[in-house]
Amino acid sequence: MRPAVPARITSLAVASFRDLGFARVDTDREARQGAPEGIVAEGKSPEEIAAIATALLDAGAGSVMVTRADADARDALVSVAADASVDERARLAWVARSVPEVKGLVTIVSGGTSDGPVVREAQVRAELLGTEVVVHQDAGVAGIHRLEPALPDLERADCVIVVAGWDAALCSVVGGLVGAPVIGVPTSTGYGATFGGVSALLAMLTSCAAGVAVVNIDDGFGAGTIAARIARR
Amino acid sequence: MRPAVPARITSLAVASFRDLGFARVDTDREARQGAPEGIVAEGKSPEEIAAIATALLDAGAGSVMVTRADADARDALVSVAADASVDERARLAWVARSVPEVKGLVTIVSGGTSDGPVVREAQVRAELLGTEVVVHQDAGVAGIHRLEPALPDLERADCVIVVAGWDAALCSVVGGLVGAPVIGVPTSTGYGATFGGVSALLAMLTSCAAGVAVVNIDDGFGAGTIAARIARR
Amino acid sequence: MRPAVPARITSLAVASFRDLGFARVDTDREARQGAPEGIVAEGKSPEEIAAIATALLDAGAGSVMVTRADADARDALVSVAADASVDERARLAWVARSVPEVKGLVTIVSGGTSDGPVVREAQVRAELLGTEVVVHQDAGVAGIHRLEPALPDLERADCVIVVAGWDAALCSVVGGLVGAPVIGVPTSTGYGATFGGVSALLAMLTSCAAGVAVVNIDDGFGAGTIAARIARR
Amino acid sequence: MRPAVPARITSLAVASFRDLGFARVDTDREARQGAPEGIVAEGKSPEEIAAIATALLDAGAGSVMVTRADADARDALVSVAADASVDERARLAWVARSVPEVKGLVTIVSGGTSDGPVVREAQVRAELLGTEVVVHQDAGVAGIHRLEPALPDLERADCVIVVAGWDAALCSVVGGLVGAPVIGVPTSTGYGATFGGVSALLAMLTSCAAGVAVVNIDDGFGAGTIAARIARR
Amino acid sequence: MRPAVPARITSLAVASFRDLGFARVDTDREARQGAPEGIVAEGKSPEEIAAIATALLDAGAGSVMVTRADADARDALVSVAADASVDERARLAWVARSVPEVKGLVTIVSGGTSDGPVVREAQVRAELLGTEVVVHQDAGVAGIHRLEPALPDLERADCVIVVAGWDAALCSVVGGLVGAPVIGVPTSTGYGATFGGVSALLAMLTSCAAGVAVVNIDDGFGAGTIAARIARR
Amino acid sequence: MRPAVPARITSLAVASFRDLGFARVDTDREARQGAPEGIVAEGKSPEEIAAIATALLDAGAGSVMVTRADADARDALVSVAADASVDERARLAWVARSVPEVKGLVTIVSGGTSDGPVVREAQVRAELLGTEVVVHQDAGVAGIHRLEPALPDLERADCVIVVAGWDAALCSVVGGLVGAPVIGVPTSTGYGATFGGVSALLAMLTSCAAGVAVVNIDDGFGAGTIAARIARR
Amino acid sequence: MRPAVPARITSLAVASFRDLGFARVDTDREARQGAPEGIVAEGKSPEEIAAIATALLDAGAGSVMVTRADADARDALVSVAADASVDERARLAWVARSVPEVKGLVTIVSGGTSDGPVVREAQVRAELLGTEVVVHQDAGVAGIHRLEPALPDLERADCVIVVAGWDAALCSVVGGLVGAPVIGVPTSTGYGATFGGVSALLAMLTSCAAGVAVVNIDDGFGAGTIAARIARR
Amino acid sequence: MRPAVPARITSLAVASFRDLGFARVDTDREARQGAPEGIVAEGKSPEEIAAIATALLDAGAGSVMVTRADADARDALVSVAADASVDERARLAWVARSVPEVKGLVTIVSGGTSDGPVVREAQVRAELLGTEVVVHQDAGVAGIHRLEPALPDLERADCVIVVAGWDAALCSVVGGLVGAPVIGVPTSTGYGATFGGVSALLAMLTSCAAGVAVVNIDDGFGAGTIAARIARR
Repeated sequence: MRPAVPARITSLAVASFRDLGFARVDTDREARQGAPEGIVAEGKSPEEIAAIATALLDAGAGSVMVTRADADARDALVSVAADASVDERARLAWVARSVPEVKGLVTIVSGGTSDGPVVREAQVRAELLGTEVVVHQDAGVAGIHRLEPALPDLERADCVIVVAGWDAALCSVVGGLVGAPVIGVPTSTGYGATFGGVSALLAMLTSCAAGVAVVNIDDGFGAGTIAARIARR
Repeated sequence: MRPAVPARITSLAVASFRDLGFARVDTDREARQGAPEGIVAEGKSPEEIAAIATALLDAGAGSVMVTRADADARDALVSVAADASVDERARLAWVARSVPEVKGLVTIVSGGTSDGPVVREAQVRAELLGTEVVVHQDAGVAGIHRLEPALPDLERADCVIVVAGWDAALCSVVGGLVGAPVIGVPTSTGYGATFGGVSALLAMLTSCAAGVAVVNIDDGFGAGTIAARIARR
Repeated sequence: MRPAVPARITSLAVASFRDLGFARVDTDREARQGAPEGIVAEGKSPEEIAAIATALLDAGAGSVMVTRADADARDALVSVAADASVDERARLAWVARSVPEVKGLVTIVSGGTSDGPVVREAQVRAELLGTEVVVHQDAGVAGIHRLEPALPDLERADCVIVVAGWDAALCSVVGGLVGAPVIGVPTSTGYGATFGGVSALLAMLTSCAAGVAVVNIDDGFGAGTIAARIARR
Repeated sequence: MRPAVPARITSLAVASFRDLGFARVDTDREARQGAPEGIVAEGKSPEEIAAIATALLDAGAGSVMVTRADADARDALVSVAADASVDERARLAWVARSVPEVKGLVTIVSGGTSDGPVVREAQVRAELLGTEVVVHQDAGVAGIHRLEPALPDLERADCVIVVAGWDAALCSVVGGLVGAPVIGVPTSTGYGATFGGVSALLAMLTSCAAGVAVVNIDDGFGAGTIAARIARR
Repeated sequence: MRPAVPARITSLAVASFRDLGFARVDTDREARQGAPEGIVAEGKSPEEIAAIATALLDAGAGSVMVTRADADARDALVSVAADASVDERARLAWVARSVPEVKGLVTIVSGGTSDGPVVREAQVRAELLGTEVVVHQDAGVAGIHRLEPALPDLERADCVIVVAGWDAALCSVVGGLVGAPVIGVPTSTGYGATFGGVSALLAMLTSCAAGVAVVNIDDGFGAGTIAARIARR
Repeated sequence: MRPAVPARITSLAVASFRDLGFARVDTDREARQGAPEGIVAEGKSPEEIAAIATALLDAGAGSVMVTRADADARDALVSVAADASVDERARLAWVARSVPEVKGLVTIVSGGTSDGPVVREAQVRAELLGTEVVVHQDAGVAGIHRLEPALPDLERADCVIVVAGWDAALCSVVGGLVGAPVIGVPTSTGYGATFGGVSALLAMLTSCAAGVAVVNIDDGFGAGTIAARIARR
Repeated sequence: MRPAVPARITSLAVASFRDLGFARVDTDREARQGAPEGIVAEGKSPEEIAAIATALLDAGAGSVMVTRADADARDALVSVAADASVDERARLAWVARSVPEVKGLVTIVSGGTSDGPVVREAQVRAELLGTEVVVHQDAGVAGIHRLEPALPDLERADCVIVVAGWDAALCSVVGGLVGAPVIGVPTSTGYGATFGGVSALLAMLTSCAAGVAVVNIDDGFGAGTIAARIARR
Repeated sequence: MRPAVPARITSLAVASFRDLGFARVDTDREARQGAPEGIVAEGKSPEEIAAIATALLDAGAGSVMVTRADADARDALVSVAADASVDERARLAWVARSVPEVKGLVTIVSGGTSDGPVVREAQVRAELLGTEVVVHQDAGVAGIHRLEPALPDLERADCVIVVAGWDAALCSVVGGLVGAPVIGVPTSTGYGATFGGVSALLAMLTSCAAGVAVVNIDDGFGAGTIAARIARR
């Protein structure tokens, strides 16, 4: 009943973290799961963000990525990593120290222009984890012929991410075309009965196309993480 | 400030109805709005259904249609109108006495086989109101090429009805193709996060394709009514 | 099994669009569906709005309409189309280059003064698509006699739009009077249990009057689009 | 800071009840509030219902009313009060021992035939509490002229109850006409987006007509109680 | 089938209103229903508020009351009625020209200090309609003995208003004590699972005490209106 | 950073369980947490229930309790433990083999008769875990004086459980009286806007009385568990 | 702007389907996406199920799987495919004709015994699509040491499926351990505030562990589909 | 039937409060329940906060605590109690005059850094009520080994508080480990499908670990109150 367990997971028993009091930075995560911890800026002070980022970098993180970051939060990363990049529109800051060799292709298609920031978040994360990413924006089904230029990249993708708000119908259309796994990211774009992304979330969850799985509303980071894991296999 | 109002609506002042105590049958509706009152069977006894139907027929209704009707409810109509038709699967009973001359075309497309009963309800109602109806079932976007045979009928339709459950993505795809008005009917097919048709309802309401309007979940009757009004203009 | 499909829809195979990177402008939509693409300003930068509008106008769009537009978004359109009109209250900007010859009548009635911006959005869109529009505001059922002056215009309408928040009871009252198709637009006016327009949305969807179909909360643009399509037939 | 409080409420200190173990029957309620405790049958065994009813009658209750009662529950009352009345459709059983002298008029209007059971529940309760009740059924706004015969009774009512499901638009129409207080009872009739009475509940709560207050979905008993209190003043 | 209807309601046929284009001011309402139209400031411009108020006053309204009014909205009323009163905390402005002779007593109790603005809104409205109003604030059941000083006023009230947020338990406690009709006003005070007043709304709607009816969240105006109607009978 | 952890929790490393394939019975739980695993019958076959119960008893469980158990599920326990007790109304079956010495007092009060089954579930569980339990049923605030006989038992309780449906106002009233910790159990009794216990759940969560914590709807088992843990300290 | 698209997707133009009137069977899907169409039995008659299955098998499907199938639905498959297998508990029927050579490993862990049917649905689908599947049931965090035997299989998996209801905490625990992509399947087990799987769905969607994606409630079929696609890459 | 009730609760009859008009300060609460009334700042003016605090201190409160306090609210307390402490991040102000002798241990663990303010609120309240509090922050299951340093303090705790947002999986993990009562505090951290803390709330309510009870979202004050009551027994 008590099996000998393999090394990586059971290394938990000796897994490291760095205790900052307000945070226990999981410096073991990249070794354990192949992807370093991300930092959601909302709810954290710039000082906390800077300290967490520093702890990660000190522990040898391949990259650090701060999401949902206002100017102060982005500056916090830059202040401790001068080589950091920022994207104001997508509310991102990140720094790459040792990105894995690129393996696999993730193709991202989006329903509309307003999905841009979430597309960007997914793209940056997936690239930091070592995948090639190709992006096709504003290919929603209101004019479905706009999807056509994306078909070759959908065809050759190892994983497809569909970022869409409103009715998210694009997700099902793509899900009915491709043979690769599809990750849906509902977005909070739109108004009225979109209810902050709920309409898109429900539509993706109930997609008539089998083979689609969904992450949280606006969660480009999560989509990029799982897509990279899939594509790099 | 007090305009002379035209005859049809203002005829309300002398509009007729038949008071059965438990029901005030609106025998004026067909004259006023071009479509006789329907009877939702749920919540009514067979005796009530029979009496309402009789009142409508006695007042010269062109047709009577009973929806969401179990066997007793369907029998109730047959008992007072031997020429009535029934559809068990669609839970319908109806009788046609004087259908208007056919004008216009309504094309109905559905997402899946399980939408069949709602398709049928919309079809019967629209036909009773005097339109031609063409039906294409199970053309959902999980295999979008199945929509292709429907394109000519979508092209020439005066009004399109899309009946779909789950993610209802078909509604947006059709809504992005055609120039005719599109009426969406979300259905309660599916399980889990479909929440009894809510996912389809929200997806249709937030369709990225402008020109789509939506009726109640499973409301084939309502869709048939407005579609016939549109198509017969 | 492989039908010959008519020209307009199947022209998708050669349908055009303009790829701006952040947007694929559907320059084919007006030809395909009789109504040019609209631009929802929220979530787009002024530069993006200006570029999309320019692409549409360059491709010969009959009109361009920007909705949910703050001052910067409205200015963006004006900057690329000096002949544009704006409406601050309704958060609109639009430019008309070649409006179709006017056909049909759309009558808009609203429940209250606060519904004004949505009324305006529907009106502008329907007019840009080539219909006559008549407006009766603040005719809600709290004082139902205020609906009376609207009766002649409801009588002669080819399509009726009802814009209402709160309980949206006006929609059902009108839906029980007229023979024309009725498009309901729930609005987010009100507070408390209106839940941002949900009360009005549900009331319209479950209207006891058959022949009513509903668009998204506050979606004057969508209502104007389908109403014009109906009225121009 | 410690006021002398008047007799009726403060009599709580010596208020009586009958402890049956599974129930503490509030035999004081009629003296305190002018209306005896009701018995909701659901969740209670026939034996419990019989015992509670007996306790109330033994304590001199003017009447006992069992709501949401299936056949067993109705029989339970009859078994301990041979003079009890039952209504199968409305799922009611009740017995009147000493109804107060009739004072005031409650006018009940309903939207449709299916609201009948709830209408009946309100009517019986109000009558047991000593008011005259007049009923007008199936006067919904889909054919608003059917409300006309009710106008005199609405005019002379001391309190109006509107029982309606679906969009409950009738409640607002009546609320905009009368000077008497209006109590709305949303019903769970309908399907789809009625969500078991939620659409009617929200519509009534957000009625554009001030002067409307609302009770629980299907709660004829509660409406009858407050209406009688209002009308008898 | 066509009854002779009494004068007041049927006077609708000749009921007056004032058409301002953006508003149809129901100048008949006070005559018809005994209470003039209120003005919800949100969604209206100061100019519109001023014009509507002027139209009402010109038509002889006994009072005009503006609710949910920011400083501009309050100033709008003052600008056209120098004798207007304002209450910043309660976001109110009102002017009394001919309040009916006082009849009846309305007792208002509230659960907490934060309910103050809604209490005030109900109080002002009821007083403007000609009732005496007594207020007991912060008597919530967390310290139920604080309700004791209110008992005499609850005892002698013709109608009781309970204003409460959070769990609104006070409403049921009062509802179980008094013989007068109880109007519950749920408030949006609180955080977390109060969901903007939903917890209080549901608790009041499902009160174990029969004889409670409920108005919209934060709707002091509506509560004052119906309470005055009840109390003045 | 790697502390020496005490024996009980860290004994997880050698914690036992019994693998039945369809279940891994946590035979360590009673040693670890002082309370054996419970068995929710719904979703399990009688054979599975019997096997799990047997595994627990074989491993020396002090008691086994099956909740939400229909007749087959109750029989399943009896078939493997002839000394088992059952309660049909409360849908329970349980067997006690070695109940701890009784420590502490848990007082349970309920709002109404229909809460009885949930009261019973909490009572049985708390007694099996070794506490004294006193029960006062049907003490809801519609007749608040019925709570009075419970006051001494509330006063001397180590933990109070309030079981209530509908508005659950009793929970706040009790929460404002006692000094002991209060555990609220919302029940799914009631109809309409109770929404299966949601109204009670929200009211308890937002109780104006601090010191109340809440378990799942109808979860007498959970309430009994935590109450016993509190009372036995 | 008109790229040469690769063969597989663009083969849509000549993709086949079989039109049965009530269904358009997508006989192209397996070629296009590597997985044949599934059949959801609910809402379909046995005759329809049999006909669809026959059409798929006639077209050379590698396997056919019927989900959510009652006895009649399962018999329908057996009647047209004598070599079919059935699982009553999991409400499944399936037939394998040419399963692809096994590639990759999918490890399924579940939270409790009641999740068994959904586990089974995922397992069968994944195996039919050509993956090895290992199952560890009832490893929920109430006794987290029960997860330990699963660690080696989690370690070596190409894709992990977590099936869990209630709080679905197991999904996040696993998601924080493994480096493989994790697919969460929320189940509708439980009662009360589980709301038919909503609690599990939300918990999985908002998992603190990045790299988790979620399918519909109870959708073992969808999970098996995407997991096989991931694992076989 | 009328029992002699013990002194403390029944002292309600002579319980004191201080009537400020806008507030009835429950100066009896600390004597009755062992914990003074708290002040939620939102919805109260600084003047009201100062006056309530003064009334409590004048009446001898052991401590006063203001929660959800912006700078003005915090200053209000400081202005009347120069010895007050404030915490800007946690939006708190408090003053301790006579804290009870420390008894018992409350261990607080949190899921992430952003939960810090709620942790602090619970900690301050519990300490003011006379318990020892130990805090372990950011121990969420995304890196479950970070919980390890907390194990000794969980082991020896008299009550455990788990503060967590998102999926709140930490609550169930802890709930499956410890023998002490566990109080869950869901937080509104996160975005998207966290829905302001609903995901965490539902997950905690449906925890697979029995023995967990839950307070309102972000309600550190309530958690601290009940935890202190439990721990001090």
